[in-house]
Amino acid sequence: MRNVPPHTIRLTYLIETDGSPERLAAKIAADQSTGTFVPVPGETEELKARVAARVVALRPLPPVKTPSYPSGHPGPFHRAEADIDFPFDAIGTDLAQLMTITLGGVWSIRGFTGIRVVAMHLPEEFRGAHPGPQFGIPGSRRLTGVQGRPIIGTIVKPALGLRPSETAALVKELIDAGVDFIKDDEKLASPAYSPLAERVKAIMPLILDHEQKTGKKVMYAFGISHADPDQMMRNHDMVLEAGGNCAVVNINSIGFGGMSFLRKRSGLVLHAHRNGWDLLTRHPGIGMDFAVYQQYWRLLGVDQFQINGIKVKYWEPDESFVASFKALKEPLFSEADCPLPVAGSGQWGGQAPETYERTGRTQDLLYLCGGGIVSHPSGPAAGVRAVSQAWEAAVAGIPLEAYAREHEELAQSLAFFGDGKAS
Amino acid sequence: MRNVPPHTIRLTYLIETDGSPERLAAKIAADQSTGTFVPVPGETEELKARVAARVVALRPLPPVKTPSYPSGHPGPFHRAEADIDFPFDAIGTDLAQLMTITLGGVWSIRGFTGIRVVAMHLPEEFRGAHPGPQFGIPGSRRLTGVQGRPIIGTIVKPALGLRPSETAALVKELIDAGVDFIKDDEKLASPAYSPLAERVKAIMPLILDHEQKTGKKVMYAFGISHADPDQMMRNHDMVLEAGGNCAVVNINSIGFGGMSFLRKRSGLVLHAHRNGWDLLTRHPGIGMDFAVYQQYWRLLGVDQFQINGIKVKYWEPDESFVASFKALKEPLFSEADCPLPVAGSGQWGGQAPETYERTGRTQDLLYLCGGGIVSHPSGPAAGVRAVSQAWEAAVAGIPLEAYAREHEELAQSLAFFGDGKAS
Repeated sequence: MRNVPPHTIRLTYLIETDGSPERLAAKIAADQSTGTFVPVPGETEELKARVAARVVALRPLPPVKTPSYPSGHPGPFHRAEADIDFPFDAIGTDLAQLMTITLGGVWSIRGFTGIRVVAMHLPEEFRGAHPGPQFGIPGSRRLTGVQGRPIIGTIVKPALGLRPSETAALVKELIDAGVDFIKDDEKLASPAYSPLAERVKAIMPLILDHEQKTGKKVMYAFGISHADPDQMMRNHDMVLEAGGNCAVVNINSIGFGGMSFLRKRSGLVLHAHRNGWDLLTRHPGIGMDFAVYQQYWRLLGVDQFQINGIKVKYWEPDESFVASFKALKEPLFSEADCPLPVAGSGQWGGQAPETYERTGRTQDLLYLCGGGIVSHPSGPAAGVRAVSQAWEAAVAGIPLEAYAREHEELAQSLAFFGDGKAS
Repeated sequence: MRNVPPHTIRLTYLIETDGSPERLAAKIAADQSTGTFVPVPGETEELKARVAARVVALRPLPPVKTPSYPSGHPGPFHRAEADIDFPFDAIGTDLAQLMTITLGGVWSIRGFTGIRVVAMHLPEEFRGAHPGPQFGIPGSRRLTGVQGRPIIGTIVKPALGLRPSETAALVKELIDAGVDFIKDDEKLASPAYSPLAERVKAIMPLILDHEQKTGKKVMYAFGISHADPDQMMRNHDMVLEAGGNCAVVNINSIGFGGMSFLRKRSGLVLHAHRNGWDLLTRHPGIGMDFAVYQQYWRLLGVDQFQINGIKVKYWEPDESFVASFKALKEPLFSEADCPLPVAGSGQWGGQAPETYERTGRTQDLLYLCGGGIVSHPSGPAAGVRAVSQAWEAAVAGIPLEAYAREHEELAQSLAFFGDGKAS
């Protein structure tokens, strides 16, 4: 975002209404700072200068016929993008306050038929004010020992229901298959049939034994999320003490408080799953863009960020994934605050060329394949090789079909997953 | 919810789709438990019995012509309510896991044109598993000394921008006006122009001095929210050590982690502001009902819960407020887990009769008036009296206009706010 004055937090809101977008932009600014409906004593000009938000630009957009929120009004529904500046001193660097003031009340305002937050610029005061990623891209590469290609990961499937010994047997197979990274499904933390302590005890010896023999330490992300930060820290400590180096955290379920508490005390790579996020973004006229949301979680300290991928099994279109990837690659204040993007869901290697081309030809990502590896017709080891081959082809600019002529595992993947049935 | 088997968590989803609601209900059950797109080794029948969610009822609803999520399909869009049962042992009592499994991935599933969670039933295993409200209704009454009528509260206005000495001057006036409860605006925590420590130092002596003189201790809710639970606890301690007994917490900004951490250590009444909530509920075909959302926060320990009111300044219709009020009054496991409902936004007393009639004729609520008290034409003391008079009339079944004939302050309120301009 250009030309933002210093000491200023700027948000951009996409406004949709059967009334006046200009009036509603002014209403956001008033409601989210000094505003109240009746004049009250003490609302002086000096006070307004101290804290008042101001609409600094309004860019009209073509109207739409169908409102985002149901409306009795026949339309058309006017739209505009409004830039609103908040004085830094009215908010400070606390992310809870930032959320409360710039987002909190916005969806409660009457008169919108749609309201979406599409951009946020934070001023220099935020530089160094938050921990940010502890490991990020360089730490993820160092700990996995993977350089010059994407980190290739997989998820233990089935998602839920395996006992620790059953999970361990699968993990053993995946380690032997040569994968760089393995994770618990985000829905697995510490249920009765698979307490985290038991799972750690069953899995970590396999990781360490393999490291002992080969020098390669597979990064295993254990599900440590818990609503109670004290319990989450006990989960964290269990993993760390057993020699583990990574954890899955369900960021929307633990909230800013859980994430902040964990990051300050963490010795693990924090792999963020954003389940619940779709509710905040799926309707194009309501909610917020990932470009806004991810800034909070990066400042809080996410090291690896799951953002779907190309041709996923979910609703999210490819261009939304590409925009998310680019948002993560954009430094907020320095490159150190960029987490490792994690492409996942329905990936099997077939999406490697498009992923590579559309995300700026980078190999700095974790490429996560569930069924795409474990369900390979010749087994997981062949699955891992097929994915590696797909990325080699993508980076070399060779079509997958051509590369597959001399790469058997990729050929099998193309035949088996080519109809889109990986998960 | 009736007839839920033991050891079972039941969610009800409102499904909307151009395809088959039945198929999508089955998809939620599969995706949120064992599900993946390709069969994977290890997905045995025994495992499915252990963790699989099951669709136990599907109630068709009339189709709609306009989809909730934009769709290229011409419609009609089929709708149904699906009850899905999750085995308790697959989830456990952790609220982060409960959210991740029953809500987390739901909005990511392809094929919906709308998806809303409308009910949740928790089994006996949750009884006593979470702290719940520490003070709730009886604690709020005991600490304010208010019995047999609603607790009458107000908000310091303007919302933001006052320095501590300016805030204190207003608070002095409000205390003298006879109000039971005063709160910081939810957007105020500890900005540069009004650090919490300074505000506490300026306000608490006024509260304590008034208590000394009159025996009445006004409950003041200080904004202590912070994304960092350690900092939030320091804020909490500051208030408690100065003799304060209440805090405003912005629950969506601090998340489950912040709330859980705070409640376990709290000596203050926790007054929840739910800013950001509207994004999760405003579209009737998307998101969730308050009946679901509030269960999490009650178990986590909210003592007082802001839920808007009748004829508010926001988008929320009256029937939604009434449903929220009723949800809060319904014990989850015992009456002790019911927080005090807080009716606010645009209230001035005029809504007292309808509030009383539609919420089950209870006076167990905190009735919060901002401009409705401080902007009363004869000043805040008259504002408080007018609100009390309105509630006396409501409970006695006397129309406000009739009661106002012998109650001057109420008459002034009717003349001044009767056109709906309170805030």
